[in-house]
Amino acid sequence: MKFSEMFFYTLRETPGEAEIPSHRLMLRAGLIRRLASGMYTYLPLGFRTLKKVETIVREEMDRAGAQEVLMPVLQPVELWQESGRLDIYLAENILFRTKDRQSREYALGPTHEEVVTDLARSRINSYRDMPFTLYQIQTKFRDEIRPRFGLMRGREFLMKDAYSFDLDLDGLNVSYKKMYDAYTRIFQRCGLKFRAVEADSGAIGGDASHEFMVLAETGEDIVVSCDKCDYAANLERAQIGGEIKDIEPDAQLLPMEDVDTPSQRTIEEISAFLKTPKEKILKTLIYSADGNPVAALVRGDHQINEIKLRRELKAEVLELADDATIERVTGAPTGFAGPQSMKEKIFTVMDRGAADMVNMVAGGNKADVHTINVNRGRDFDVNMMADIRNAIDGDACPRCDGTLRYFRGIEVGHVFKLGQKYSKAMNVSYTDTDGVEVLVQMGCYGIGVGRTVAAAIEQSHDDNGIIWPPALAPYIVNVIPVSASDGEQSAAALEAYDALNAAGIETILDDRDERP
Amino acid sequence: MKFSEMFFYTLRETPGEAEIPSHRLMLRAGLIRRLASGMYTYLPLGFRTLKKVETIVREEMDRAGAQEVLMPVLQPVELWQESGRLDIYLAENILFRTKDRQSREYALGPTHEEVVTDLARSRINSYRDMPFTLYQIQTKFRDEIRPRFGLMRGREFLMKDAYSFDLDLDGLNVSYKKMYDAYTRIFQRCGLKFRAVEADSGAIGGDASHEFMVLAETGEDIVVSCDKCDYAANLERAQIGGEIKDIEPDAQLLPMEDVDTPSQRTIEEISAFLKTPKEKILKTLIYSADGNPVAALVRGDHQINEIKLRRELKAEVLELADDATIERVTGAPTGFAGPQSMKEKIFTVMDRGAADMVNMVAGGNKADVHTINVNRGRDFDVNMMADIRNAIDGDACPRCDGTLRYFRGIEVGHVFKLGQKYSKAMNVSYTDTDGVEVLVQMGCYGIGVGRTVAAAIEQSHDDNGIIWPPALAPYIVNVIPVSASDGEQSAAALEAYDALNAAGIETILDDRDERP
Repeated sequence: MKFSEMFFYTLRETPGEAEIPSHRLMLRAGLIRRLASGMYTYLPLGFRTLKKVETIVREEMDRAGAQEVLMPVLQPVELWQESGRLDIYLAENILFRTKDRQSREYALGPTHEEVVTDLARSRINSYRDMPFTLYQIQTKFRDEIRPRFGLMRGREFLMKDAYSFDLDLDGLNVSYKKMYDAYTRIFQRCGLKFRAVEADSGAIGGDASHEFMVLAETGEDIVVSCDKCDYAANLERAQIGGEIKDIEPDAQLLPMEDVDTPSQRTIEEISAFLKTPKEKILKTLIYSADGNPVAALVRGDHQINEIKLRRELKAEVLELADDATIERVTGAPTGFAGPQSMKEKIFTVMDRGAADMVNMVAGGNKADVHTINVNRGRDFDVNMMADIRNAIDGDACPRCDGTLRYFRGIEVGHVFKLGQKYSKAMNVSYTDTDGVEVLVQMGCYGIGVGRTVAAAIEQSHDDNGIIWPPALAPYIVNVIPVSASDGEQSAAALEAYDALNAAGIETILDDRDERP
Repeated sequence: MKFSEMFFYTLRETPGEAEIPSHRLMLRAGLIRRLASGMYTYLPLGFRTLKKVETIVREEMDRAGAQEVLMPVLQPVELWQESGRLDIYLAENILFRTKDRQSREYALGPTHEEVVTDLARSRINSYRDMPFTLYQIQTKFRDEIRPRFGLMRGREFLMKDAYSFDLDLDGLNVSYKKMYDAYTRIFQRCGLKFRAVEADSGAIGGDASHEFMVLAETGEDIVVSCDKCDYAANLERAQIGGEIKDIEPDAQLLPMEDVDTPSQRTIEEISAFLKTPKEKILKTLIYSADGNPVAALVRGDHQINEIKLRRELKAEVLELADDATIERVTGAPTGFAGPQSMKEKIFTVMDRGAADMVNMVAGGNKADVHTINVNRGRDFDVNMMADIRNAIDGDACPRCDGTLRYFRGIEVGHVFKLGQKYSKAMNVSYTDTDGVEVLVQMGCYGIGVGRTVAAAIEQSHDDNGIIWPPALAPYIVNVIPVSASDGEQSAAALEAYDALNAAGIETILDDRDERP
């Protein structure tokens, strides 16, 4: 195509709405245009790149044996009631809904588990009807609280979503592996640096999942990855390796003593007030686990990981205890809890990383008081020693003797083992060879198609603009005559343009009468 | 792909919802599945055919120089207020709408004139910024009163919509012609028998339009087409040719006479009651044209065409007069109007086809009375003689000496000259070479992608099922071993299957252990 015929423009100014490089560069290069908050038009150049990602996704889905379908955007809310997801989405208020002229209500699909499960149950009768994996590439809708970063967190966005149906867990593992491998090929073909990381499965539910993270300094997510083996996980999920270190046998345990710490509650405040490093302070947090108070202990410079804690406690609901509970349990207002002298004896979990601490500073279980030289074994005991904190850069790998490192990443894909969550809620079963009714095993697999374009730009750009991976570039070659008004030059440029296009190399000719 | 791995099923029973062949066959062959009224999932086989139409459409749009974009489904209603279309669509109640968490309202796009016009005005400054044509292939939404016929009239459906922007009418004509030619190539490549017919432009508005009609006996629309030249139009629009025949000079005009016709109001009733053929009866209809009463006269066996009548009267709003107006104007209750003795003298239009009628039967302008032997010139005069009726099979062609014939068709595409309707409402102008601000000229061009699949089936099927045009067949070859359990046969079938696929011929292998 020639520039003179192209619907194309560039902006000199950076639009005020753009906070991150991909958003800024896509607007400035005329790839997208904002219609409303979180809703963008793909302009011709941007659409070409989008289509390239879509084509790679489609080819690899097909190669993996997945079959393409197209399900409606509008989904009867009755299906969402049946699956049990409606209440969750309504509570978060992220579901766009509409009513028809008969006042029937529909959700604008954010994902399609319900619709595809309803389709599958109409088809599945016997064990011969599986396995199969269906996918679609389609526009999705989420009424985000804070739509931002352009295509990165939109309210209307292009997704590839796939769903697998299997007889049993072995089958699910095979289908999951096929999708995992297809995702690996997709992001490789896109020319992206990425890691597949173990992840928590969140609201969609299920048993196991991996996120595909494009590595970029501007990424919102932290990827924890071993510098030696291929272990990688997101921060919520990353396990910490190494032996548990106990208190040194020859450690000198000093006498416990209360000190006045008026209004000094946080680790930062105590550390400054007592001139003690944070790693000498024990953080004591009182939680309510399914209604029961629990004390969680972690080194002052570490961050508690509630997902790990909840899993260790096997609790359905875990939340910080309220002030009244804390006062009742510890005898002190919030901010002064310590494990050594609580009013009530409650279940106590200590993070493995705090196991070797001696002569710790802890809350005094009295208002405006902390206690120094607190020691486990002598002054308090724990019910459980477990990995309940976030990994930090430099922690030991859980799989090998390597070291965990932090990277920043952007989630572009997610593969889930859903298990029987939806087949149970919506009753999708088959008759096995013994004549027994068995619930099917499902998986679901998403890729943000537009988000992949944005992530590619986050990973690869400089002060002069986007540096496209060749597989995603809207065009491969741009022929620019130094002087378009020079007849000889423009003839030569046209010749090069024609020859390149004839050779199957996507080429544009900048035939505008502008200085290079 | 092998049948055993394919998500595929057939239904023995015809689902009760299906009224027409394409709907019935698509459901029975497992091409689509109903999710809700007017909302269908494309299953793998159906999706393959959909994709083939989409690919042909895309290739021909690109070849015509149109540039692909993707605009959001959700459109701020403010844009619809600006264009003036909101009230019209709300009155018809066909717009799906939704609100976000800030109570901002969005329409689910049925078409994208507003969004693309808003985009164009952000880009267009000077005459150098045009021409261009943008298109997208996208899901559209219309809350139809009676969704029916499967993909033929859905509430969610896949459309290709294109929009051209030009400096002037000459430019618009060029852009329009390019789209017209592209549409011709598209439906030719799909292997369909079709006609491009002149059409009225309806609610979208504008100056000229053509509908692309796939010919099929089950079509809802009537296409009027010359048997000699390439003139074709839809029934609303079809002009009628030939000379106006006046009353024969030697015609014997009989004396006028009132006859009692108690409760005989319709042409059918009068014809039976008086034993007079319908073509001897003059139908007199009283309209209100922009509030003024008008009498329209047409031969009893002809149908009045209100679109033609409105255009001849140059009226904005044309509707049948209410009973009170009819009684005031004619002196009789509704059903007894005639042009010869009305109480009030009103503007009278006669259809050209009634010009040579003599000794007509007409309403007597009194309750339960008709008048016989009414003659134009002697008993009444008309203010206008014009073409105000529907063409019938056998009428003269308006372009040549051929004869108009009726066909039934299904509208699959529509090209419109919008002119300055939207550029005026939404203020899209450019500065011409003389420095003058000029409104741009727009065109819009739609193809129903899913509807084209359904129309292809309506045109080509028999009692055994769908007869696909090769270009649209989901697969080209199906290899079916006579006995799949016979090792030698199934090995030979597999060999053929592999060889055909390797040769680029889309082939399935029916490896189910079923009798052919």
